[in-house]
Amino acid sequence: MRIRIIFGLAVIVVLAIAQTPKPGPREMAARTIPVPTTVSPQIQQLIAAPISPTWNVFPKTNEGWKQLAKEAADATVKTLPALRQELHVKVEPRTIDGVKAYMVTPESIPPENRNRLLVHVHGGCYVNGAGEAATGEAIMLAGFGHFKVISVDYRTPPDFPYPAALDDAITVWKAAQKMANPKNMAIFGSSAGGALTLSMVLRAKQDRLPLPAAIAPGTPMSDLTNAGDSFRTNAMLDNVLVAPDASCDKRAALYAKGHDLKDPMLSPVYGDMHGFPPTILTTGTRDLLLSSTVRVHRKLRQAGVEASLQVFEGMAHGQYGRDVKAPETREAFEEIARFFDKHLGK
Amino acid sequence: MRIRIIFGLAVIVVLAIAQTPKPGPREMAARTIPVPTTVSPQIQQLIAAPISPTWNVFPKTNEGWKQLAKEAADATVKTLPALRQELHVKVEPRTIDGVKAYMVTPESIPPENRNRLLVHVHGGCYVNGAGEAATGEAIMLAGFGHFKVISVDYRTPPDFPYPAALDDAITVWKAAQKMANPKNMAIFGSSAGGALTLSMVLRAKQDRLPLPAAIAPGTPMSDLTNAGDSFRTNAMLDNVLVAPDASCDKRAALYAKGHDLKDPMLSPVYGDMHGFPPTILTTGTRDLLLSSTVRVHRKLRQAGVEASLQVFEGMAHGQYGRDVKAPETREAFEEIARFFDKHLGK
Repeated sequence: MRIRIIFGLAVIVVLAIAQTPKPGPREMAARTIPVPTTVSPQIQQLIAAPISPTWNVFPKTNEGWKQLAKEAADATVKTLPALRQELHVKVEPRTIDGVKAYMVTPESIPPENRNRLLVHVHGGCYVNGAGEAATGEAIMLAGFGHFKVISVDYRTPPDFPYPAALDDAITVWKAAQKMANPKNMAIFGSSAGGALTLSMVLRAKQDRLPLPAAIAPGTPMSDLTNAGDSFRTNAMLDNVLVAPDASCDKRAALYAKGHDLKDPMLSPVYGDMHGFPPTILTTGTRDLLLSSTVRVHRKLRQAGVEASLQVFEGMAHGQYGRDVKAPETREAFEEIARFFDKHLGK
Repeated sequence: MRIRIIFGLAVIVVLAIAQTPKPGPREMAARTIPVPTTVSPQIQQLIAAPISPTWNVFPKTNEGWKQLAKEAADATVKTLPALRQELHVKVEPRTIDGVKAYMVTPESIPPENRNRLLVHVHGGCYVNGAGEAATGEAIMLAGFGHFKVISVDYRTPPDFPYPAALDDAITVWKAAQKMANPKNMAIFGSSAGGALTLSMVLRAKQDRLPLPAAIAPGTPMSDLTNAGDSFRTNAMLDNVLVAPDASCDKRAALYAKGHDLKDPMLSPVYGDMHGFPPTILTTGTRDLLLSSTVRVHRKLRQAGVEASLQVFEGMAHGQYGRDVKAPETREAFEEIARFFDKHLGK
């Protein structure tokens, strides 16, 4: 009798649990997500593009990775003459204290920018984007913002893993101080370049070098451990990076080469951001690195740093720099230029 | 023969189309999204909560809607004594030029805030949150920011549709100018209160009333046409509003009562934001209104307005105001308080 009552209670309890929605992970049904109408036609086209065809292509050899990176760079380089022409910018290769770089110069430089200089670190998940391909984003900020820019063509893995890229960037940062006052200088870059922008400041703090007057890390790869929520929520929605543990992460692993991914020099969201210069961050609502961007923003604010966040409607990873004719592209870069204008000395 | 060749070509074309990923909407497979570890335990608990049990409950009568709203308000009111005690804030009902309101006063007011006054408009998709339930967010900003606040207990639908809420809020705004200098005042509120904050400024511009020195619209219902991308991307992920065309939209429809949803007084993202005061916006990465928030931010920036955006990791709609003990709650309100302190006269 006693046992029967207990069983009866057990059944009631089980029913109650089944009827109450359970706390915990969110179960999402399959669905179709349309292209938003709340962005320009140019950005609609970028959002409508199929997911990157190479997102889950993993070469088995270092040579294979280099070949993929070369193909991507060759394709980018073909687009650069039109970009330079559109924005009236010239690009010249230069070697700075042994590091390859490009001087990126707009045709006209307004008086307030004549003594200012920006340092750019390109993206490409550390492996891609070397050579002249490095210069795309630098051309955009030089053109839209009318600043002189040095774009660092840092050494890349698999041949040159961490800390080669950071070392090269810091070498250029030190050398640049002979060309301009650091108070008149800023550092910027997107994706891996966003992470490098942040780790350059961490490294400059550590080495007691002068800091730039402002920085603009775009959608920074600030957390190589992929801890942020948007690595899950925006997976397969972001058509550029697509998902965690895909091509970009494999390339970042070639850079880290076994080094602790939580080291702030690789994942700057874990760094101490006290004393950072004013920072403007850029991302999009579909960006796989939305969380990696907003977490850096919050961390900077917690450290008392002046930090500004711009989040573009509908955009996946780095799409604010993909189409020079999109009004949002001009908007994103002009915002960064205004932020630099506010914070840089003359 | 000719026909056979054409058919052969057709087959090849069809195969090619099938093999190339098509541009257009994104097809998302079913998936499980875990609770992020990158937020405090308190916010993890909010994110882990099942989707709102009333998200798709639609009463068939006005009385049914009123009953639901009353139940929700009663539940909220029970939590307020502890909130007031925690934050050392007192709340007194007051009628201001015929409009019901609450004076929300912190125990200690620092000298710089003695001549400052904030006006609060509560959320609840226009139907919910009336009466004392209106005061929760006002208590938080009074407590964390040490400001005096008037919380407007505006009339609600179904009995009082648009523009009753806006009329009441503007009546209080006008009356408040006899209590403080508008240069020392700000307006804030979340969700419907975020939209009302924005439409109050549009209305004040239109009626040539003094504008506040700053505003803080939190996750504003700025687009009742649901045009933004996050209405789709965050549907069923946001456990508060859950999805478009759910309870919140039905309540907003009771407010609009057939009025054009694209009227800027109902959907302020379509309004002219030139001349707006400095604005701080707050949202979360899982917010169904993430797009409605970032679109307002961009619109303000395009109009040359000083506008600051804070996006909290992992949070769904309005979760920055749900748990007074969460460190993110303090952070969100202290950011707003700092922004007001920067922009308000003394």
